[in-house]
Amino acid sequence: MSELRPADNGFLRQLRALLPEAAFQADPAAFLTEPRGRWQGRGHVVSPATTQEVSVLLRACFDAQVPVVPYGGGTGLVGGQIAEDITPVILSLHRMAQVRAVFAEENVIEVDAGIILADVQAVAEAADRLFPLSLASEGSARIGGLLATNAGGLNVIRYGNARAQCLGLEVVLADGTIWNGMSRLRKDNTGYDLRDLMIGSEGTLGVITGASLRLMPRPGDEATALFVVTDPAAAVRLLARAGEQIGEAVTAFELIHRQGLAFLAEAGIAHHAPFARPPEWMVLIKVGLSAGQSAQAALEQLFEGALDLVSDGVIAQSQQQAQDLWAIRELIPEANRKIGSISSHDISLPISAIPDFIAKAPCEIGKIGPFRINCFGHLGDGNLHYNVFPPQGSSRDTYLAEREAVKTTVHDLVHSFGGSVSAEHGIGRLKVADLECYGDPAKLTMMRAIKTALDPRGILNPGAVLRHHGDHG
Amino acid sequence: MSELRPADNGFLRQLRALLPEAAFQADPAAFLTEPRGRWQGRGHVVSPATTQEVSVLLRACFDAQVPVVPYGGGTGLVGGQIAEDITPVILSLHRMAQVRAVFAEENVIEVDAGIILADVQAVAEAADRLFPLSLASEGSARIGGLLATNAGGLNVIRYGNARAQCLGLEVVLADGTIWNGMSRLRKDNTGYDLRDLMIGSEGTLGVITGASLRLMPRPGDEATALFVVTDPAAAVRLLARAGEQIGEAVTAFELIHRQGLAFLAEAGIAHHAPFARPPEWMVLIKVGLSAGQSAQAALEQLFEGALDLVSDGVIAQSQQQAQDLWAIRELIPEANRKIGSISSHDISLPISAIPDFIAKAPCEIGKIGPFRINCFGHLGDGNLHYNVFPPQGSSRDTYLAEREAVKTTVHDLVHSFGGSVSAEHGIGRLKVADLECYGDPAKLTMMRAIKTALDPRGILNPGAVLRHHGDHG
Repeated sequence: MSELRPADNGFLRQLRALLPEAAFQADPAAFLTEPRGRWQGRGHVVSPATTQEVSVLLRACFDAQVPVVPYGGGTGLVGGQIAEDITPVILSLHRMAQVRAVFAEENVIEVDAGIILADVQAVAEAADRLFPLSLASEGSARIGGLLATNAGGLNVIRYGNARAQCLGLEVVLADGTIWNGMSRLRKDNTGYDLRDLMIGSEGTLGVITGASLRLMPRPGDEATALFVVTDPAAAVRLLARAGEQIGEAVTAFELIHRQGLAFLAEAGIAHHAPFARPPEWMVLIKVGLSAGQSAQAALEQLFEGALDLVSDGVIAQSQQQAQDLWAIRELIPEANRKIGSISSHDISLPISAIPDFIAKAPCEIGKIGPFRINCFGHLGDGNLHYNVFPPQGSSRDTYLAEREAVKTTVHDLVHSFGGSVSAEHGIGRLKVADLECYGDPAKLTMMRAIKTALDPRGILNPGAVLRHHGDHG
Repeated sequence: MSELRPADNGFLRQLRALLPEAAFQADPAAFLTEPRGRWQGRGHVVSPATTQEVSVLLRACFDAQVPVVPYGGGTGLVGGQIAEDITPVILSLHRMAQVRAVFAEENVIEVDAGIILADVQAVAEAADRLFPLSLASEGSARIGGLLATNAGGLNVIRYGNARAQCLGLEVVLADGTIWNGMSRLRKDNTGYDLRDLMIGSEGTLGVITGASLRLMPRPGDEATALFVVTDPAAAVRLLARAGEQIGEAVTAFELIHRQGLAFLAEAGIAHHAPFARPPEWMVLIKVGLSAGQSAQAALEQLFEGALDLVSDGVIAQSQQQAQDLWAIRELIPEANRKIGSISSHDISLPISAIPDFIAKAPCEIGKIGPFRINCFGHLGDGNLHYNVFPPQGSSRDTYLAEREAVKTTVHDLVHSFGGSVSAEHGIGRLKVADLECYGDPAKLTMMRAIKTALDPRGILNPGAVLRHHGDHG
């Protein structure tokens, strides 16, 4: 890859001659920060209205060797949407936000990449279908970004991550070529799986402009329970038993630790305490069956057959009770933000290694300092959010010097168990060094070869996922 | 890619110095034909016993620029396992057929790539789990080949194709580098999705030596029904309704045409006729629910609510009855072979386009000749096996001259509906020209760039999927 050139005024004048004025109206300020406020980016926002305009824009950037940062809803947590070193074109898809077609009978919806996730969910619901991807930022995250980062969320145990929801893609390549892969097919073995290569490549191999998405039947009867488990090993066994008894109808299986409830109290966040005395480990389970079956009965049966693993439990008897239970899980991240973590980790582990990891990690972290740990998350996917906090009464700022040691300790341990240091958030710019450190060398060699093959001038999101050739970090 | 060299005696002497004698014991004859008897291949069989030996072998081939054809069970139907033009090393995985580990609690099994599918199914069953991949050749097809071709089969509507069953891979690359991607993780967003790139690449990007596979809960209660539908449009509507009522528990949804029953009779294949007068269109449905629920009741309910679509039906009242119904579906390919098709097509279509396709295709084919059509297959996946036969009393040999016209007519029509000319069999060597003809040009350009990036000397299965650089076909 050769040297990139910044998007300077001369280049912008060139773009204005190629694209309608409407593509240059966005307020740049909104595109230069990210949710955690860690980075301050730079760049000029261009927002095309059609795939053809995206193609024209990329062709111009390719010819001039100007970097392009594809931009969805801006909700990424690893800096994939923020360039700091060189002034890029920020290619926002927000003006491409239409539903292209709904095929309810075949469970397919075709959309522009700039459509917001909540809007896809709503269109699916109007067609009596479910678009199962669901996560905290669903009100602002856009499909293109969700696919580019292979987003996860709450329902992955049942429905898979963003990758599993996608049947086809339309992608504009580095040189402006449009790949029309907007397939509605369930089976198509004609050549390499470029769809899945693009999904999760974080805008470094192409710009997703459209997607053909899979819809699912809506479960007719849902129920939620919060079970007290004796320890994480019991939680893992309960997960296996839930699968044996309830099959694929387990929609969510979330681990909650007492620390999460304590943080809710400490942060003054109102919630319904589910138990008089907060137990140490809980799992929040959601089951969705088809109409005419009883999800509540399935949870009761699970409870009754699991008295060796479960010491107490609440099965929601109403929609309101279910919402109250879910509120606990959904408010924990807010409590975490208010307490202020020293270091947060989005990790995954082989599911049967989770009890060992949860036993060992606090010992290792305890050697660095007297920290508090809030360990919670998507146990059903082996995905934990493992966050480390200062002791009560101290501020995170006191321990900034320990952040790197904490992070390395957690990541080393995860790696030793065969886990991943980025389960659902991606690499972005934050974890490039982690990928280099923990990634299989053959994998990194292949990734670099593919990057060079598909983006020979290195203009697509340079510095994300892989270090840019010119970088010395 | 530069010129390849055949695996001559000098090169074989070199290999014998590098690998144990046991790697050179296989009878080559078994590796030089394929199920349909269309090709007669060439090559020298080498069968390593370890990943390390595969690496040594590939390194030697890379250095000498000798082609390698990776070989699983040899059951592929598109010639992916057969080289005709140059003498390659046939790299058979049959001596690497061990189960490496079973993690029943986390629903994972790790295996060598040479293990036979039926053996994986048996190990899963012994652990009270299901490995859902199931197809006619499961007694001889090997996991490495099934993944390399992204095999489909009967249960795809519920469980997905081979791709969906795989969590991680171990792959030896063209130059002998071993990529250890044997992950047991459900979520891992650290870099490009090389796993799915390897899956379906038909041995042209790397040699799969190991796989980490996902197991599923075993359904506790299963039931099968054969419903008579008024026409293909009713079948598609019934499929949607089955999803709405029964959710993801629909395990199979197969279309059968009267011609299939007629062929069973014509070929003298014994079976239980399900209806006194064979109806024109039928769907065979299998439902699997968890224990304690009634799959039979679910099918009865589906039938009762679908009297606008369904005119008659049999719901199996016993295991034996269910087997009899399934035998009809499973014997049809045998009947087809006995009758002898002029041209067979493994196609997929957007599901809602299927009625139109089924209406139009016979008109187009009728212009070529007075042929009989047996259209059946995995309607739930939009995947039809669309086979064209001579008129009764004539032999296929009479119509060999029409084969190409029939094939082109079917494929052109499939393509015009946004369908695929290879739903589950892959490209191999048989459909290279089809991929060039119907594939999106940007897709082909990307595929070639990736091939060159990962296999710069073009030694891996040359001529499969993509034309080899030196080929002029």
